[in-house]
Amino acid sequence: MNLDTITKPTLILNEDQCRDNISRMAQKAGRHNLKLKPHVKTHQSIHIGEWLKEEGIDEITVSSVDMAEYFAAGGWKHITIAFPANIRELNRIDDLASRVGLSMLIQSEDVARQLAQNISHKIGLYVEIDTGSHRTGFKYSQTRAIEQLVEQVRSAPQTTFKGFYSHPGHSYHCSSRQDILEVHQSVCKQMQLVRDHFSSLPDSFSVCIGDTPCCSAADSFEGIDEISPGNFVFYDLMQSQIGSCNTEEIAVALGCPVVAKFSGRNEIVVHGGAVHLSKDSIKTNDKTHFGRPVILHEKGWDAPVAGSYVTALSQEHGIISCSDSFFDSIETGDLIGILPVHSCLTADCMGAYTTLDGQYIKQMNAN
Amino acid sequence: MNLDTITKPTLILNEDQCRDNISRMAQKAGRHNLKLKPHVKTHQSIHIGEWLKEEGIDEITVSSVDMAEYFAAGGWKHITIAFPANIRELNRIDDLASRVGLSMLIQSEDVARQLAQNISHKIGLYVEIDTGSHRTGFKYSQTRAIEQLVEQVRSAPQTTFKGFYSHPGHSYHCSSRQDILEVHQSVCKQMQLVRDHFSSLPDSFSVCIGDTPCCSAADSFEGIDEISPGNFVFYDLMQSQIGSCNTEEIAVALGCPVVAKFSGRNEIVVHGGAVHLSKDSIKTNDKTHFGRPVILHEKGWDAPVAGSYVTALSQEHGIISCSDSFFDSIETGDLIGILPVHSCLTADCMGAYTTLDGQYIKQMNAN
Repeated sequence: MNLDTITKPTLILNEDQCRDNISRMAQKAGRHNLKLKPHVKTHQSIHIGEWLKEEGIDEITVSSVDMAEYFAAGGWKHITIAFPANIRELNRIDDLASRVGLSMLIQSEDVARQLAQNISHKIGLYVEIDTGSHRTGFKYSQTRAIEQLVEQVRSAPQTTFKGFYSHPGHSYHCSSRQDILEVHQSVCKQMQLVRDHFSSLPDSFSVCIGDTPCCSAADSFEGIDEISPGNFVFYDLMQSQIGSCNTEEIAVALGCPVVAKFSGRNEIVVHGGAVHLSKDSIKTNDKTHFGRPVILHEKGWDAPVAGSYVTALSQEHGIISCSDSFFDSIETGDLIGILPVHSCLTADCMGAYTTLDGQYIKQMNAN
Repeated sequence: MNLDTITKPTLILNEDQCRDNISRMAQKAGRHNLKLKPHVKTHQSIHIGEWLKEEGIDEITVSSVDMAEYFAAGGWKHITIAFPANIRELNRIDDLASRVGLSMLIQSEDVARQLAQNISHKIGLYVEIDTGSHRTGFKYSQTRAIEQLVEQVRSAPQTTFKGFYSHPGHSYHCSSRQDILEVHQSVCKQMQLVRDHFSSLPDSFSVCIGDTPCCSAADSFEGIDEISPGNFVFYDLMQSQIGSCNTEEIAVALGCPVVAKFSGRNEIVVHGGAVHLSKDSIKTNDKTHFGRPVILHEKGWDAPVAGSYVTALSQEHGIISCSDSFFDSIETGDLIGILPVHSCLTADCMGAYTTLDGQYIKQMNAN
C-alpha cells in the first residue's frame, strides 16, 4: 500500500490475513463437523461478509436487530441475533422473521410469551446457558426453569425450539492457552449435561458456543454442533496475550500520523485516540496499555515494536512510550501502525477499513 | 418525551439543560472578559453549534481537520484546531485556511517550517504550553525554545502568531473542587509567566486555556484571554465526581431497554454496551463502573439511583448491579437511562441525539 496516501487515523486491513483467519476457522469447523456461524459484530461489513460466503458459510450471528437488518439487506438468509430478545423491538423482529430464517436467544418465560403473542412469523429460539461468564442465561443446573422454558417455546406455534446457546465470555479473562482449554472443557461438559438432559425430546436441536478464545485454542468439541466466534477474523493484542492467536495473525492496525515527539520522556504523540482505538486496555508486563506500535510497510506491518506501548489516550491524541531505538527512528510526520487491544471496539469506532491495496470498505454505520 | 417510541439504545439530550450549561458558561466568560471558543468535539453537531451562536459565540475549537471542515460547512468562520498541526494534511489545511480564519497549535520548529513552506493562505498558530498534563506542548520554563518558535512563526509571511494555548488535562484527575482550583491557579500562574516573558513583543497575542473542570470551577482568570472548554455542554459523571458540575447539570443519558433480570445476583441486563457508552470508567465508593442508572420520565430523568451502577460492559450488553428496591421496580422491557461516565466518548459512539421533544440531531459522522 502507498503509505503516503494515509493522512489521518485509518483502520488498515490486511485482507489476506483476514481471509486466512476465516479459512482456518472454516477448516477447523469442517474437521470437527461443526456448523460455523461467524459473529459478524466484529467487522460489521457486508463486504467482508462476502469473504465468509466464499468459504461456504451461509449462516451468521449478529448482536442487534439493526445488524440483522443490515446483513439481511446483504443477502444473508439465516441469521441468529445472539442477544436476549428485546420486546420493545417486536415489530422489527416480526418483519425480519418474514424475510429471513431468524433465531434469537431467550431466557425468560415472560419474553417468550410476549414473542408468541405478538409475532406472526415463525422465529427460532435458543435457550441461553450461562457457562461461567455470568452475563446472561441459565446455569445448566437450573433444570426445572430450563425445562419449563423449552416446553413453552415448543408449544407456541410461532416459536421453534432451536437448542441451547452459550457465550463463554469468561474465556477472555484467561491468561494462557492452557487456561482457555480448561474453560473450554468446562463449557463443553456443562453443555453436554444440558444436551443429555433433553435427549428424549422428540425434536432435534443444536448446541452452540460462541467465543473466539475457545474456538481458536480447542481441538475437541464433543457435544457441540455449532460455533459462532466473531473476533477471529481480525484477532487483536488481547487474543494474542491470552493465547488464542499469534501477533502475526492480527489482521488490522490503526494507521496514525505522528504529530509530536518529546525527547525528555521518550514519548511520541500520534493522531489516534479514544475515538479511534476505544478505551479498552490490557496489562502487559505490568504495564496497562491501549495498543502497541508496529512499523508499517507496503505489504503490511512487522511484529510489535519491543518495549513500546500506547500508554495514554485522550479523545484524539495517543501517547506512545517508546524504546530508545524506536523513539530515535521516528520523525514527526511519519505514519505508524497501532495493533488494537480489542479489534471489535476499534472497528466499531472507525466505521470503515482501508485494505493494503487501497480499497475502502464501509461498515453498517458508515456515512 | 414519549418513552414508548424508544426501542433501542438512544442518546437522549435534554436541550434545556444543555442550553443552560452553554448560557451559564457564556455569562461567566462575559463577566471575566474572556472570549469563549467552545470545543465542539464533545457534541460534534452543527445543529447544537447553532445554540452556541444564539449565545453570541462566533468562534469554536475543534480537534481535527475533519471536524474543522464539517463546522466550516456549517457556517463557522473562525476555527481553532486544538491539535498539533499534522503535516500529512497540509493540502486540506491550506484549503480550509482559504475559506475560514484558521488557527492551529504548534510545538515544533520543523512543523512550523513545513507549514510556512507549503501553505499559501495565512494561518494562525498558538504555541502550546504544557501546564501539567504532560501530553503536548512546552513547559513554561523552556523559554529559549518557545522564543525561537515564536520568532519563527512571526517571521514567516504565511503564519501569524496568535499566542499561547494550554489544555490542562490533569484537572480531570482531580478529586474535589478544591483540587481543581489549585490546578487552575497553577495553570494561570504558568501562563502568566509566559505572557510576562513576551510582554515586549510588538504584536498583541492571546492566552487561551481549555478544560471544562477549571473553566467550570474557577472564578478568577487573571492573565487569561480565551477559554475553550468542551465537555460543559453535556457534563457527565466524571465531571460531577471531581466537582466541576452537579449531577442535575448532566444533559445526556443513554436510553437502554432492559432485556433480562437476574434475581440471584440483583443484576439487570440492558441493551447498551461498550459501543454505546464507551469503555471509559471511574471509581465511585471504591467501585469501578461505566455509568449510573436513572429513572426516565417525560420531562427528563431523576437523580442517579442510589447504590446502583453499570458494573460491566460487553459490546452490546450492559450489566447493572442494582439496589434491592431498584431491582424490584424494574421489569424486562422497561426503558432506563444511564448517565455516562464520559459524555464526549458516549456522544462519539452514538453519533446522534434524540431530544426530549423527539427531535433527532445528527453528528458529523452520522449516516
